[in-house]
Amino acid sequence: MSVDPMTQDWSEVEAALEKAFSAAMQLYTERGFAGQFGFGRRPAVVTIDLANAWTRPGNVFTCDQRKMNEEIIPGVQRLQKAARANGHPVIHVTTAYQNTNPKDPNSDLGIWPAKSPLLEMKQSDDNELWKIDSRIAPIDGERVIIKKNASGFAGTDLHNYLTSIGVDTVLITGVTASCCVRATVQDALANGFRPVAVKECVGDRIPAAVQYNLFDINAKLGDVRTVDECVDYLSTINMRNI
Amino acid sequence: MSVDPMTQDWSEVEAALEKAFSAAMQLYTERGFAGQFGFGRRPAVVTIDLANAWTRPGNVFTCDQRKMNEEIIPGVQRLQKAARANGHPVIHVTTAYQNTNPKDPNSDLGIWPAKSPLLEMKQSDDNELWKIDSRIAPIDGERVIIKKNASGFAGTDLHNYLTSIGVDTVLITGVTASCCVRATVQDALANGFRPVAVKECVGDRIPAAVQYNLFDINAKLGDVRTVDECVDYLSTINMRNI
Amino acid sequence: MSVDPMTQDWSEVEAALEKAFSAAMQLYTERGFAGQFGFGRRPAVVTIDLANAWTRPGNVFTCDQRKMNEEIIPGVQRLQKAARANGHPVIHVTTAYQNTNPKDPNSDLGIWPAKSPLLEMKQSDDNELWKIDSRIAPIDGERVIIKKNASGFAGTDLHNYLTSIGVDTVLITGVTASCCVRATVQDALANGFRPVAVKECVGDRIPAAVQYNLFDINAKLGDVRTVDECVDYLSTINMRNI
Amino acid sequence: MSVDPMTQDWSEVEAALEKAFSAAMQLYTERGFAGQFGFGRRPAVVTIDLANAWTRPGNVFTCDQRKMNEEIIPGVQRLQKAARANGHPVIHVTTAYQNTNPKDPNSDLGIWPAKSPLLEMKQSDDNELWKIDSRIAPIDGERVIIKKNASGFAGTDLHNYLTSIGVDTVLITGVTASCCVRATVQDALANGFRPVAVKECVGDRIPAAVQYNLFDINAKLGDVRTVDECVDYLSTINMRNI
Repeated sequence: MSVDPMTQDWSEVEAALEKAFSAAMQLYTERGFAGQFGFGRRPAVVTIDLANAWTRPGNVFTCDQRKMNEEIIPGVQRLQKAARANGHPVIHVTTAYQNTNPKDPNSDLGIWPAKSPLLEMKQSDDNELWKIDSRIAPIDGERVIIKKNASGFAGTDLHNYLTSIGVDTVLITGVTASCCVRATVQDALANGFRPVAVKECVGDRIPAAVQYNLFDINAKLGDVRTVDECVDYLSTINMRNI
Repeated sequence: MSVDPMTQDWSEVEAALEKAFSAAMQLYTERGFAGQFGFGRRPAVVTIDLANAWTRPGNVFTCDQRKMNEEIIPGVQRLQKAARANGHPVIHVTTAYQNTNPKDPNSDLGIWPAKSPLLEMKQSDDNELWKIDSRIAPIDGERVIIKKNASGFAGTDLHNYLTSIGVDTVLITGVTASCCVRATVQDALANGFRPVAVKECVGDRIPAAVQYNLFDINAKLGDVRTVDECVDYLSTINMRNI
Repeated sequence: MSVDPMTQDWSEVEAALEKAFSAAMQLYTERGFAGQFGFGRRPAVVTIDLANAWTRPGNVFTCDQRKMNEEIIPGVQRLQKAARANGHPVIHVTTAYQNTNPKDPNSDLGIWPAKSPLLEMKQSDDNELWKIDSRIAPIDGERVIIKKNASGFAGTDLHNYLTSIGVDTVLITGVTASCCVRATVQDALANGFRPVAVKECVGDRIPAAVQYNLFDINAKLGDVRTVDECVDYLSTINMRNI
Repeated sequence: MSVDPMTQDWSEVEAALEKAFSAAMQLYTERGFAGQFGFGRRPAVVTIDLANAWTRPGNVFTCDQRKMNEEIIPGVQRLQKAARANGHPVIHVTTAYQNTNPKDPNSDLGIWPAKSPLLEMKQSDDNELWKIDSRIAPIDGERVIIKKNASGFAGTDLHNYLTSIGVDTVLITGVTASCCVRATVQDALANGFRPVAVKECVGDRIPAAVQYNLFDINAKLGDVRTVDECVDYLSTINMRNI
């Protein structure tokens, strides 16, 4: 990859956005936007595309590695530990396809490959790209949900599953802010859940994309809360005693 | 409204974003993002929330009025005219609720009012806020779809309807870029359609929000095409002769 | 209507089915089918197509009038009263279309009219056919959900709405057993809810159709419980005190 | 299994139903039901639960073996051959679960196990029960869709996938008539497709269940056509030349 936005200086655009968002948030709050849903009575922790294609270097989907290694992975480890300790579901969502030949009518790629470089995401045992990063991998029968589009809810049983176990709050982490995380937040809201984007645990390839997508999410679609707040929340509700 | 982002100078943030997006797009294209779906064989024109609460001044949902009056409404008028001339569906999506008491379990507000100022969007005959702006209003039995969340597909029959008539390309216009338009684009893609955001016909309250959401859409979720291109496309396919 | 299955003698077929079902249920229970979900912690009462086209005489959709007047309507009245007394949602689902011209691409009829006589179900103020029967009509801001296909969940916000208010048990009544009621039971199950078909409150045009569809439902898809059991259940959970 | 409905004499109940359905169909046709959708312009062949748990003897899900071996499997072989020859999708739907511990909140069983004996349907390599019967197994990258409830559309990407490739007609085969096949027919209709139940290729554990469910399907939900008609249809449309 000859271009690496990570080596560029993003301070100018971040400062400009910060200033713009300050004015915008004043408008939003005056008009009644950017309220908070608050945490509900039963949470689940969901990771979006924290599979090797996104978490590790050298792939077309590779995300900002500093953020991934220093913030997202450690934060998700804390969330998963707190959830497991108290009997909350830990759900791992990734992206893969059974048939990656876009010319085959039997292919499950759909139309997305015309826009996005998906052809290497074959759901085969010997392909590590779609498998969850080993640092935050599923244990003890935790669910791995394979999606084929941006949202963890699109074409999966996630809504039905969460309904069946009475979850009302979905803590969402992963990548990318500008696509699959935001799409999952939006669908969680549309489907009737309280979506929470965990601030330190949402990444992208472009730093500004985290900034402006979390801004939109907080204003309109979901709460943005810190890892500390979410770990505290997960610890206050112990499903093992219910 | 004491704060009006429209009277602020957005040139600095727009210039900073433009520069940032230039670097980001270089990364995207090198990695295989930002491809184009292209127009399909059967289109539909969809307007999102071009109802009086958004198109007219003085409401909490009011959008950038210059853009609305000078670009969005005239552009949508051209799209609707071209679609009607050739037998393509013209679909009007708006937002309204049968019961706007958030404490009533029978209310269809869901959880969104905690985040967004929806309580005035009562679906009653004497409330003009949810009705489609008269300048681009439905004619001749065109559909008005009432949604309750961001996306035009969420909790509506839009996917089923478009499947039943064989549409494969959805031209999406309206407001806002940072919420309902982007959500509709995303769901159109997830549901298997080619989404097209019509460039001049997508608005918001905050100018930068149009800029960065169309950037994300073009990179990952849908094509961004001009009104001219879309009108030409609508004119090339005449369903009345098929 | 020159043919009236209600005036025919159904005792022979009912007796034959009863005998057949006795053997079939022995197989089912030996193999582990026909278990019971039991009532959950939060119910909603849903009526399917108890609109005038189905409840009143003289229409193509008219159902068995003896059953309607002597069992379904009185039973639903009891269920609604119990639900209202304790703060449970009372939801009225009916079927109607904005544009009933099947040749218009803007029509919301979809493909169903080729199979079913839907053309008179226009959603207009002066059409009484799609409106809920006045004996069990909505009060106090209760929801009326307009569907366009068989299931109350298909193309509506019913799943999202029930998720948003934490319902886990759906008491289903109405007509017809062989189409819209069964479809709603099936979708309630698929979506993660406990479906309960209220035995006396499910009707059809053909008596045997109630018998064999409730048999299949009980064996595979939902519990079949009496009005008395359901009224008792609704009375044990008082959401007004929570 | 000590009870085998297959060894019982079903002629009495079948004759009684036949007589009842004759009267009912007269009512239906007079009122405008039981019309035909007809075949559309682009088909797909879908098998429902033709996995070893259903197709082979000795399991709780085992279906009528005479019908399976003499009609369903040979019929599906003909349909698949015709579809493959002309470039039509061949889709295999089965049922399996990642975590079959109903007490684990991470289990994807949902609530269905309370009603149906699903606990042996673990999605593991060494479990043959959920795998497609080898006589009609997938070839050449054909899709295997794993569902968790009755309908092939529930919690899967089937609707999105069929939309993305422009299918409008779904030829449905498999088991059981009284549950998963009927549910898939119903969802195909609700989602905007023309559902066709292939007459000889739909089975159950109870002969009468095929009879009365196909009757309801034909009256209200989908066309019921013979294998010969469907093979002819598949052969008339050659996607390989388009």
